[in-house]
Amino acid sequence: MKIVALAGGVGGAKLAHGLAQILPPEDLTIIVNTGDDFEHLGLYISPDLDTVCYTLAGLANPDTGWGRVNETWNAIANIEKLGGPNWFRLGDQDIATHIERTRRLKEGQSLSQITRDFCKAWGVRHTVLPMSDQPVRTIVETDEGDLPFQEYFVHRRCQPRVKGFRFDGVDSAEPTAGAREAIQSADAIIICPSNPWVSIDPILRVLFPNSYPLTPIIAISPIIGGQTVKGPAAKMFAELGINPSALAVAEHYENFLTGIVVDSVDSELAKQIRIPTLVTDTLMKSNADRARLAQETLHFIGNLP
Amino acid sequence: MKIVALAGGVGGAKLAHGLAQILPPEDLTIIVNTGDDFEHLGLYISPDLDTVCYTLAGLANPDTGWGRVNETWNAIANIEKLGGPNWFRLGDQDIATHIERTRRLKEGQSLSQITRDFCKAWGVRHTVLPMSDQPVRTIVETDEGDLPFQEYFVHRRCQPRVKGFRFDGVDSAEPTAGAREAIQSADAIIICPSNPWVSIDPILRVLFPNSYPLTPIIAISPIIGGQTVKGPAAKMFAELGINPSALAVAEHYENFLTGIVVDSVDSELAKQIRIPTLVTDTLMKSNADRARLAQETLHFIGNLP
Repeated sequence: MKIVALAGGVGGAKLAHGLAQILPPEDLTIIVNTGDDFEHLGLYISPDLDTVCYTLAGLANPDTGWGRVNETWNAIANIEKLGGPNWFRLGDQDIATHIERTRRLKEGQSLSQITRDFCKAWGVRHTVLPMSDQPVRTIVETDEGDLPFQEYFVHRRCQPRVKGFRFDGVDSAEPTAGAREAIQSADAIIICPSNPWVSIDPILRVLFPNSYPLTPIIAISPIIGGQTVKGPAAKMFAELGINPSALAVAEHYENFLTGIVVDSVDSELAKQIRIPTLVTDTLMKSNADRARLAQETLHFIGNLP
Repeated sequence: MKIVALAGGVGGAKLAHGLAQILPPEDLTIIVNTGDDFEHLGLYISPDLDTVCYTLAGLANPDTGWGRVNETWNAIANIEKLGGPNWFRLGDQDIATHIERTRRLKEGQSLSQITRDFCKAWGVRHTVLPMSDQPVRTIVETDEGDLPFQEYFVHRRCQPRVKGFRFDGVDSAEPTAGAREAIQSADAIIICPSNPWVSIDPILRVLFPNSYPLTPIIAISPIIGGQTVKGPAAKMFAELGINPSALAVAEHYENFLTGIVVDSVDSELAKQIRIPTLVTDTLMKSNADRARLAQETLHFIGNLP
């Protein structure tokens, strides 16, 4: 079964890693949100792409969910000492990724080419693709004005109240060639448990600007018992006047969703969902959890009516 | 006595540190070569400026002479793993300097302003100035073609045979305002034991494009017993057909030099030098050596005829 997984950061990376533990490299393509990308300290930073790649490579920091394991912080500590911006924490190993990616982009290489080379260097065998090689920039519209995503997410710690979202550049951004081909030959598309508003929507807007494919599309709810494991998805639903729940996730994707996976704590709520629903434990605390959830999701897809 | 010291990298930094141990901050201005500056990995790197500042701040690596003490190398190791250029070794603490400097230059700050701010952050109380805020690029003309300085010095390890030197941009580069003022009020100018061809000549070309000041100018020979402590100065003299010696250094500067300090091993040779000459131990192995040589040089200047 050929699978395309759509992923944002931490939650998406975990399920992508689960799928990678089960599927052979040729059967899994992970298409990653780049709406969070930004330039900082002169470096081009792709937070979601790095989180997915580091996680697949076994290089991710298991405590933070972002950045590298066994990291040191000497560069950022010295930038701070010189009075430079320190709100975005860049580890010494991680900074190498941004420096070398920035160097290659300036040489004219595409983000997807660079990602392919980096994956090879890191021993990632499954295909990881940015959603686009053209810039898309997620802007969070808040009661304190429009904020570029990282400014909202990291610098302002998601405190401003959300009024809406905008994806600058999305109308002219093309899916990467590999993403297009993977979608065409996919037996199913899995929407990882990432933030629907700011991680998945930008990918969907780029990949499916006009209409959705006939391929089954299955989502794993990032909302468990009304909350998110990490990140502001539940807060965003609430601030937009929607009760945050697995049901709200199903409704967010209702125009095209074939089935949904929700957590066992939401088994009662699941009865209100009108599409095929798998109720299981979706919290991924260990590598084994990731593989089990991936396996159960694939099994669910295989048995869809 | 108000002193201006002209300095390149390691040797110059050592004497500058010696002078800083003796003179109060208001009486010492160190003007540093920027002909070695280059852009690498998207970062603006000022090797001589950093060596002088790190040395004065007590942050320099005493073993290498360049870079930072107690350094880690996680960024460059990871850049190397990704297939990026690794010939210029950037430590994690050191890289912070280049990232923050590059960020500020792109914001429109001048190199001298940035250097002043960095010195303040590092606790350097004496004035350190780049020779110019405009780019000057030292090109080494060799039998293998013209090489930018760092390409010759670090990447090619000074192996190509030298035919001459060129300082691109030198004719339009202005001395920094602070450098001009310091020169005007100086009681003496000390040419540190740096490479005459590639460290001192570019500074002289920028500061004194037409004529030399009447202020006494004293040089410390970087050639000791026909050899250099570090770097290619002796090799350059030889390849240009000049026997490398303290005498050759005196002759290199003969148009304007008031006096010279040469090492005790060259006491016989010193008799051939026609300007006032101080013969003493010039090898600076310890901080005390630096202060002693600085003190003896100042004493020598005070007693010039």
